Amino acid sequence: METVLTSRTKQLAIGPDHPFCIIGERINPTGRKRLAELLAAGDFSVALEDAVAQVAAGAHALDLNAGVPLADEAALLRELVLRVQDAVDIPLCLDSSVVEALEAALAVCEGKPLVNSVTAEAARLERILPLVAAHGAAVIGVVTDEQGIPATAAGRLANARRIIEAAADHGIPPEDVVIDPLAMAVATDPAAPRVTLETIRLVTEELGANTSLGASNVSFGLPERGAVSAAFLTMAITAGLTAAIMNPLASETITAVRASELLTGKDEYAMRWITASRAAAHG
Amino acid sequence: METVLTSRTKQLAIGPDHPFCIIGERINPTGRKRLAELLAAGDFSVALEDAVAQVAAGAHALDLNAGVPLADEAALLRELVLRVQDAVDIPLCLDSSVVEALEAALAVCEGKPLVNSVTAEAARLERILPLVAAHGAAVIGVVTDEQGIPATAAGRLANARRIIEAAADHGIPPEDVVIDPLAMAVATDPAAPRVTLETIRLVTEELGANTSLGASNVSFGLPERGAVSAAFLTMAITAGLTAAIMNPLASETITAVRASELLTGKDEYAMRWITASRAAAHG
Repeated sequence: METVLTSRTKQLAIGPDHPFCIIGERINPTGRKRLAELLAAGDFSVALEDAVAQVAAGAHALDLNAGVPLADEAALLRELVLRVQDAVDIPLCLDSSVVEALEAALAVCEGKPLVNSVTAEAARLERILPLVAAHGAAVIGVVTDEQGIPATAAGRLANARRIIEAAADHGIPPEDVVIDPLAMAVATDPAAPRVTLETIRLVTEELGANTSLGASNVSFGLPERGAVSAAFLTMAITAGLTAAIMNPLASETITAVRASELLTGKDEYAMRWITASRAAAHG
Repeated sequence: METVLTSRTKQLAIGPDHPFCIIGERINPTGRKRLAELLAAGDFSVALEDAVAQVAAGAHALDLNAGVPLADEAALLRELVLRVQDAVDIPLCLDSSVVEALEAALAVCEGKPLVNSVTAEAARLERILPLVAAHGAAVIGVVTDEQGIPATAAGRLANARRIIEAAADHGIPPEDVVIDPLAMAVATDPAAPRVTLETIRLVTEELGANTSLGASNVSFGLPERGAVSAAFLTMAITAGLTAAIMNPLASETITAVRASELLTGKDEYAMRWITASRAAAHG
């Protein structure tokens, strides 16, 4: 299955027969105090620097989050979309838990973005899917439901199926739903990564859907987080993961993605590996 | 299944319920000109430095190879075993394709070593298994046969089964046969890593046997070999690999092993990860 996103002039295909899709995570004020302050003050300079830097580092799409406490998130996300799509020509991932913010962002976003996100909760499905359908967007379906995060891969698969079916009821084709299997911190739950990997495998095999996750959650609370995220991404790509919201400026994780593509046969004769290695040596 | 090796006073268990087993690869003159020259001249100083350094870096066992061209390999490997087991007290992996060298090394090796290796070729099985049995050693069974390296995982599994059955005929229990699924260079065969990973899965699930591989072959001919080996080891450990002959001094690969153990639930609550990370920060 192939999820196609577009920007003003560019097209991006996500799927098992395409390069692993790197969605830049940096434009997100959570835990970034200075970015939060600047965005709240209407200063987009750092956000735009982040956009350009992530594209230069190999991001295929950019996640945009404007969740600054006390700010008008709808107005801010709308403005962020307008600024970023004028600065870089790659597809966007509109990231908010506030429906009005998604609505405002979709209204001005050029091309076909990825809406981040809907869950399997009935109330969320009913609010967000009509928006996604009306704008011809794609959507990330996070496998949580009214009871929270299912402890088992089977439970997460059931929620993924529920989201894809609800999307179909709204006229959204299955290829436009990218499933987030949820990666939780291994420091607090030693079994968490295995449940996530099994969910990726099940969603890939049983539903044929594309998957995307936030690669940095798994290492939360640990030292040397980059190395944990790198190994986890390697495992997830082997299990079938097709995209991740991650930091393309973190060389350890980017290198792991490239090595994983090489070892899973997505980089025949190591052309991309060798090219990237040369670029790094001369960069 | 649990493969137990011993040194003079220490015991090492290899298996899915034990820490991933790191067999230090450094004491091998192949591609190390200076080491080859020193060994040929009867100078074991660098070999012993390598032994101590690898143990300090976390090796659980040491591979010893004395394959110096034109040298008397049997005499050299015998002497190497004597010197190394006086210097460090961890199990040894006696590495030679020359039967007489294995015989000479086994004669002086204290404890229960791992013989590296036998293949599924009838002539090799008939020569090497009696030696292994007579010394109560364990053995690495490489999945090649008279026709070479099987292209498919099913073919490699069949050879693994053949080796384990032949070992049983010689009174060697199945837990004392560690299967090498063979890792070939991805640069020349893009499908090679996937066949190896599938072989690990099949050998683990169908035979319950432990597996060990040479982790550096896969990156042969490529730049940034450490990153490729690290990602491959991560995938192999996820597939069930229980040991590798590798360089414990290469921090990139060692970090990948530790992260993989953490993510596959072999390092509950990240105790080893955090300890190793602190040691690295202060080391």
